[in-house]
Amino acid sequence: MKPLHLVKIGGTLIDDEETLTAFLNDFSRLEGYRILVHGGGSKASKLSQRLGIKVAMNEGRRITDADSLEVVTMVYAGLINKTLVARLQALDCNAVGLTGADLNVIPARKRVHTTIDYGFVGDIESSQINSYLIRRLMDENVVPVFSAITHDTKGQLLNTNADTIASTLAVALASKYEVTLTICLDKPGVLRDVDDPGSRIPVLDQRQYGELKQSGIIHEGMIPKLDNGFNALRDGVKHVSIKHSKNLLNETGTRLTL
Amino acid sequence: MKPLHLVKIGGTLIDDEETLTAFLNDFSRLEGYRILVHGGGSKASKLSQRLGIKVAMNEGRRITDADSLEVVTMVYAGLINKTLVARLQALDCNAVGLTGADLNVIPARKRVHTTIDYGFVGDIESSQINSYLIRRLMDENVVPVFSAITHDTKGQLLNTNADTIASTLAVALASKYEVTLTICLDKPGVLRDVDDPGSRIPVLDQRQYGELKQSGIIHEGMIPKLDNGFNALRDGVKHVSIKHSKNLLNETGTRLTL
Repeated sequence: MKPLHLVKIGGTLIDDEETLTAFLNDFSRLEGYRILVHGGGSKASKLSQRLGIKVAMNEGRRITDADSLEVVTMVYAGLINKTLVARLQALDCNAVGLTGADLNVIPARKRVHTTIDYGFVGDIESSQINSYLIRRLMDENVVPVFSAITHDTKGQLLNTNADTIASTLAVALASKYEVTLTICLDKPGVLRDVDDPGSRIPVLDQRQYGELKQSGIIHEGMIPKLDNGFNALRDGVKHVSIKHSKNLLNETGTRLTL
Repeated sequence: MKPLHLVKIGGTLIDDEETLTAFLNDFSRLEGYRILVHGGGSKASKLSQRLGIKVAMNEGRRITDADSLEVVTMVYAGLINKTLVARLQALDCNAVGLTGADLNVIPARKRVHTTIDYGFVGDIESSQINSYLIRRLMDENVVPVFSAITHDTKGQLLNTNADTIASTLAVALASKYEVTLTICLDKPGVLRDVDDPGSRIPVLDQRQYGELKQSGIIHEGMIPKLDNGFNALRDGVKHVSIKHSKNLLNETGTRLTL
């Protein structure tokens, strides 16, 4: 199977021009098939604020009412996505910026929750991903760039967590490619002490993860990322790493193993 | 050659939910290959206003400073484009929302003008269009949906008039398809009297157009649309019509002939 690099970047990286430039240079030099997935939370929050739209969060997940959905669609699928596409084109990466609605790649289901109304939030499953056209495009040397927007296939756009999109796409493509999933952070990997970059755990296995989670050593925001990562490994993704974006081309980071 | 319908819609249509729904239903029933090109001026102006960004125009063309470019990228390439894509998916049109930066379909040159600084505005040429991947996607039954954003291939997004994008794409594809270019308006076609829908000119040839233009009968905003339309005909586009969006599936409108 041919190698596919699926890289997820977040808002902090996108907001910093110098870090973004360095990252895109490195990304454009990755060999094999490539997919980029991006978030963009802070820019969306800033625009919401300027427009007087209240940003409500629950356990790190944005509550997406109709106004907030407009904002994230504008910021994720418009501003950030197309800026990344143009920047990649300048680096000779033939990028195409997509949401899950485009080519119906990522059909989602509006989240139903017993106590919290998350609004226009979409839950997704790897078995529902339509990867055929993505694969055809990659065969033409195209680099898909996904923003964290999906749809319900009935005309409604939905907001879906970018880490979830990255790991779900990785699993969906694992039967066709040798997938390396890399989650980029502004930290050098999973840390024993969130304030000490020297405390990076180079290799983390499932059992160790369970222990660190139980003892409260692993930081709360990291848990969904790691859960997604271990799920991806169990579902056939070959390599999963959590890294600082500046280490995309080297081994410094936290590699997950089963 | 196989038929290709290239349809351009503007802001007024997009702003009206009922008209948009009817149009998308009709568009989804067009036979053959299909491309949709959209503007979205009024939504962009409204967002600019809410954000306190001044909207400057010159002869109906937006002056695009850095802030305005962010706004049009968010509104055109994000909100409007992805809403149209999701709505078309619900109608079983496998749409993909693109800017000219995606797949490098429409490389542009930043406009240089001796007296006016248009800002981030891109001029385009049909000979520069990269249609290969668009044609491959259409062979897979995909419907490309273009917003009025292009790029300079060096990392800079640019704003390009949607009518110009539609006619330039039409010309670029005229050697591969029998192209029908339809420019949708909120009027039934080219009118002798802008206030009288009954004064529609069913067929307009070049000579007649020249006369009507000289005598001031043709409304100012219509001139660039008609110039684009006649240019497209001269450059190999088979059919060019100007129509109300509600007449997409019938012949009511103004058909241009050489």
